[in-house]
Amino acid sequence: MAIVVRNTQRTDSELVDALGHFGVATIHEAQGRRGLFSARLRPIYRPVRIAGTALTCEVAPGDNWAIHVAVEQARPGDILIVTPTSPSDDGYFGELLATSLMARGVRGLVIDAGVRDVAELTDMRFPVWSKTINAQGTVKETPGNVQTPIVCAGASVQPGDVIVADDDGVVVVARHDAAKVLAASQLREANERSKRQRLAAGELGLDMYSMRDKLEQQGLRYVDEFES
Amino acid sequence: MAIVVRNTQRTDSELVDALGHFGVATIHEAQGRRGLFSARLRPIYRPVRIAGTALTCEVAPGDNWAIHVAVEQARPGDILIVTPTSPSDDGYFGELLATSLMARGVRGLVIDAGVRDVAELTDMRFPVWSKTINAQGTVKETPGNVQTPIVCAGASVQPGDVIVADDDGVVVVARHDAAKVLAASQLREANERSKRQRLAAGELGLDMYSMRDKLEQQGLRYVDEFES
Amino acid sequence: MAIVVRNTQRTDSELVDALGHFGVATIHEAQGRRGLFSARLRPIYRPVRIAGTALTCEVAPGDNWAIHVAVEQARPGDILIVTPTSPSDDGYFGELLATSLMARGVRGLVIDAGVRDVAELTDMRFPVWSKTINAQGTVKETPGNVQTPIVCAGASVQPGDVIVADDDGVVVVARHDAAKVLAASQLREANERSKRQRLAAGELGLDMYSMRDKLEQQGLRYVDEFES
Amino acid sequence: MAIVVRNTQRTDSELVDALGHFGVATIHEAQGRRGLFSARLRPIYRPVRIAGTALTCEVAPGDNWAIHVAVEQARPGDILIVTPTSPSDDGYFGELLATSLMARGVRGLVIDAGVRDVAELTDMRFPVWSKTINAQGTVKETPGNVQTPIVCAGASVQPGDVIVADDDGVVVVARHDAAKVLAASQLREANERSKRQRLAAGELGLDMYSMRDKLEQQGLRYVDEFES
Amino acid sequence: MAIVVRNTQRTDSELVDALGHFGVATIHEAQGRRGLFSARLRPIYRPVRIAGTALTCEVAPGDNWAIHVAVEQARPGDILIVTPTSPSDDGYFGELLATSLMARGVRGLVIDAGVRDVAELTDMRFPVWSKTINAQGTVKETPGNVQTPIVCAGASVQPGDVIVADDDGVVVVARHDAAKVLAASQLREANERSKRQRLAAGELGLDMYSMRDKLEQQGLRYVDEFES
Amino acid sequence: MAIVVRNTQRTDSELVDALGHFGVATIHEAQGRRGLFSARLRPIYRPVRIAGTALTCEVAPGDNWAIHVAVEQARPGDILIVTPTSPSDDGYFGELLATSLMARGVRGLVIDAGVRDVAELTDMRFPVWSKTINAQGTVKETPGNVQTPIVCAGASVQPGDVIVADDDGVVVVARHDAAKVLAASQLREANERSKRQRLAAGELGLDMYSMRDKLEQQGLRYVDEFES
Repeated sequence: MAIVVRNTQRTDSELVDALGHFGVATIHEAQGRRGLFSARLRPIYRPVRIAGTALTCEVAPGDNWAIHVAVEQARPGDILIVTPTSPSDDGYFGELLATSLMARGVRGLVIDAGVRDVAELTDMRFPVWSKTINAQGTVKETPGNVQTPIVCAGASVQPGDVIVADDDGVVVVARHDAAKVLAASQLREANERSKRQRLAAGELGLDMYSMRDKLEQQGLRYVDEFES
Repeated sequence: MAIVVRNTQRTDSELVDALGHFGVATIHEAQGRRGLFSARLRPIYRPVRIAGTALTCEVAPGDNWAIHVAVEQARPGDILIVTPTSPSDDGYFGELLATSLMARGVRGLVIDAGVRDVAELTDMRFPVWSKTINAQGTVKETPGNVQTPIVCAGASVQPGDVIVADDDGVVVVARHDAAKVLAASQLREANERSKRQRLAAGELGLDMYSMRDKLEQQGLRYVDEFES
Repeated sequence: MAIVVRNTQRTDSELVDALGHFGVATIHEAQGRRGLFSARLRPIYRPVRIAGTALTCEVAPGDNWAIHVAVEQARPGDILIVTPTSPSDDGYFGELLATSLMARGVRGLVIDAGVRDVAELTDMRFPVWSKTINAQGTVKETPGNVQTPIVCAGASVQPGDVIVADDDGVVVVARHDAAKVLAASQLREANERSKRQRLAAGELGLDMYSMRDKLEQQGLRYVDEFES
Repeated sequence: MAIVVRNTQRTDSELVDALGHFGVATIHEAQGRRGLFSARLRPIYRPVRIAGTALTCEVAPGDNWAIHVAVEQARPGDILIVTPTSPSDDGYFGELLATSLMARGVRGLVIDAGVRDVAELTDMRFPVWSKTINAQGTVKETPGNVQTPIVCAGASVQPGDVIVADDDGVVVVARHDAAKVLAASQLREANERSKRQRLAAGELGLDMYSMRDKLEQQGLRYVDEFES
Repeated sequence: MAIVVRNTQRTDSELVDALGHFGVATIHEAQGRRGLFSARLRPIYRPVRIAGTALTCEVAPGDNWAIHVAVEQARPGDILIVTPTSPSDDGYFGELLATSLMARGVRGLVIDAGVRDVAELTDMRFPVWSKTINAQGTVKETPGNVQTPIVCAGASVQPGDVIVADDDGVVVVARHDAAKVLAASQLREANERSKRQRLAAGELGLDMYSMRDKLEQQGLRYVDEFES
Repeated sequence: MAIVVRNTQRTDSELVDALGHFGVATIHEAQGRRGLFSARLRPIYRPVRIAGTALTCEVAPGDNWAIHVAVEQARPGDILIVTPTSPSDDGYFGELLATSLMARGVRGLVIDAGVRDVAELTDMRFPVWSKTINAQGTVKETPGNVQTPIVCAGASVQPGDVIVADDDGVVVVARHDAAKVLAASQLREANERSKRQRLAAGELGLDMYSMRDKLEQQGLRYVDEFES
């Protein structure tokens, strides 16, 4: 009963690459704090940052057959997003699959489960965000959906959405929102640049953000320590 | 109803810096195995070691307003200690706040919650011990206490206490105990140095610590393997 | 009531060293997916790979006395395998014990608990796989068994079995299976080498593994995206 | 920037109530193993089973203001589905909110966070599935979306979808699939009834499901124990 | 180096018993959301509620010797509060210790670790809040402090403070704050009683708490669903 | 490559039933604190206690086929012990399998994974100890070993060993040790009976166990509180 959806739309590569100039935290803020994957996903090496289009894949627990199916649907610029249909820490992915994906121009893997061969994946500079690292392999008995909408690590992902991943985590930007989020990210970044300089010069956030009045209204009170 | 206590006492900087020559494990032993923060706090990069005086800060869950208030109370040599009033993995702290703290001479951050911008924090060499890494940001709606006694990751901390943090974890030394703990740490270190040499030369701990009699009393029995 | 078994058999060092050429994931597959330690054990630094013979040790919770006893039983080429008799995150092991083990030719430590002095252990290049890193020390009041069969992190280990550990995790190979598993690992590695080349050249796993018919039988269906 | 969507469609109450005759496990199977909430959600008392239409609500971490907004949108037969925008164990919900929801005909609460007043909620027979039980309260500073599509405990939920919850967990059935899933559940239940009788009479699953040939093909082998 | 402090002050029994009329959630709110133990502590049976004075006890990991020492210091109306000096899930406490405590008028146990004999403890109606249930026993080799200030499950407790525990969790009220917190709890309870009636009658929290204006200021927007 | 071992030896039923008169904590102590399953296994209802002989079964993750194979090997008095070959929370077992096992005289299930239909299992009084409760079902694609030695939840189990399970957890007694452990349990129980009476009468454990001298040697010190 599994389905592979072919020829799905991808977000424009220019938009994707432009979003890739921003960190996950910036993009997440810029789109109203939506689309973040759970913090349980961690990169296998740091520092790292990639952006690409979501190639989605559901796997049965302990079964990586669907990943082999997904490889055929990959296009250059994709990031493979894998979610098991029930929680699992098995190692679904290793250097052979990474070799195959790199040959097809895929930029990385995000998986809410485990991977193995991390020494080799690190040497190859194939970026992976995973829940765990685990030598435990999988079988190939049950197919799974490829390029259908999925929930991965708490984030709702449509095929072709933009994925940005770095040391802080992974975020998804919906295809139709990409241009808007890019603009908001640029604005936010410019704004932060000037703040950074003022803070580095010793200005206080309390003054820069004009927080003192509101803090007083909220009842913040200053006292001096008794002698001790 | 939040309070900021100004002009709190700090431990003498000479004592602090002297304690900073010892590792967390040594200091923890030297003060009778007290004051250790939970092992769930991990440094964002290794190797690292800092010592400083506690600047304490309580934040509401998902709200980092109190950190902005704390910055103003910072003095050179402080380490910011942040605890949420209920457990949270959000990213309360990033490179802008680190920039501001560095400008004021703060030596690092210990937080029983999440941080973000870890690539930038690593580049800046701003040391952080946190429960998690998370791009998820916070709001600024609810103030929190600054420079009051807190419990952070299971450790009880008074403003101005000594904090030492390294690859093994984080420990607090009460201000009034600092001199005594320093002396005990020096003694312990000297003691370990001589042991290290004897062990490296092949001497057994069983002999060096004279353990054999007590082990026999406790019923330890030696047998030889049957043929197999 | 604790026992130390002396003069236990070890797997032949040639077999051990030959197995050490393969990764944990390969060996685990080659012996039919058995013998893997839980993925909660992680190396304190990466990359790393060692192979050796199991020197087993049970410790009471919060008590590392048995490790001191185990050191005397160590032989060159051993790997120390430590399991607490009930779950614990304490730091049972640090640089003094590592110094002693290195002096006796021990190649590393696998422990289903915590270790400390990780900066020093990393500098010494003494490899450790542990559940956690924790400055919390232990007492020396209760002895434990050395060189008896144990369960460590879910794996059943006999003294003298082969242990291989790398970035992916830790695996045990039974002494009497070592030659057979070595042969199977060699076969598997050779097999993977040719696959790697074909995949790197762009061949699809679906074709290389002849999966298409079986996928169709299992009901996998291809559809094209509706216009959007 | 929060939104409340009014007058959303609900699934027909007859369909909802008919689905409520089946257990979560049956419905989950009947719709192809989709729509299950994470097993971390547990009922505060057992046994219990309810069915209703999803009234969705996103809350800021440590902030339950949006729940108060959601109450106004409630209709008889709804089940309130609450998800924090970042993980939290706080107690967002207690007996006052339950009183208000019961007055409006709401059948229960599913929340990927904590609740409190569980003794009172149990006395009132107001069913709750939550991640934890926690006296820790929340603030009312940040609004959140009501009746928008959400991800709750890993399940994707649209307002008006069918929710069924019992001792085994919580499942969502999409509004447009409800009739089809009802039919499949009825079929499955009838099928299980006859199997139950045969198994109770001692017939083996191996025979009833004709598994023996396939097991042999998969390499299952029977051996007899050696004397011992 | 362990210490037992004798003849510590207890909070007045009238205050304690009066506080025991309120739930943990109410008291926690009434004292400004302070003093809550971590939600990982759960009662072994429900429903249950007790109030008493803290008899504090630190145990070494896997060692319950200090509990035997604490029994002698118990006075009628006390609640035993046990914290291990490093995290542990062992079963430190069973029906023999409960028998002894009941004979001395102790009202219950709060422990950030495990207990055993829970069937017997339930039959005896000896209330326990623990992190886990575990048949794993402990040794008696290392003493621990009794009646000193401790941190238990994240809460800072002084001997003689008031402890209230129920189905929602455990809270501590400082001895010197007990009267003030009692008054605040009474006020809060009275306030909630009238709210409960209004909500049961169908009044909305939005109106009762006059939230509509503030929600609008915060940007909450109402929209109607498009036809579907 | 899976194996089913037929006609394995079971421990004598008289020994098994006699051991069933003792609690898990008592037996665990009586056999020297060995054989306990991890405390993560919890009974689905309480109170409950069973004893029986181990019928062992390994399942692939997310696949319960081997359980169907195991049913045929069941004999009256057995307890089914199931362990997945990698960690999983899926619901491998429900009321149909329980019906089948009850028809064959099996006394209960111990599984280091999830079960479903817990309302029905509770109604049937079929005892289960599991890691979780989860409606998520499994496939039937990969066979697994039946009646081979396994590690389940950290305990090493041989087919035919005695299993005792109650509210406190699950313990295994090796077949050849059963008589010896029974005798030790009887002794321990008799011993505890007299202690219970003395403690109930108010005698202190400190005196009954003659602990005072040893505590003093270990450095326990009594002090009186300063006025406050």
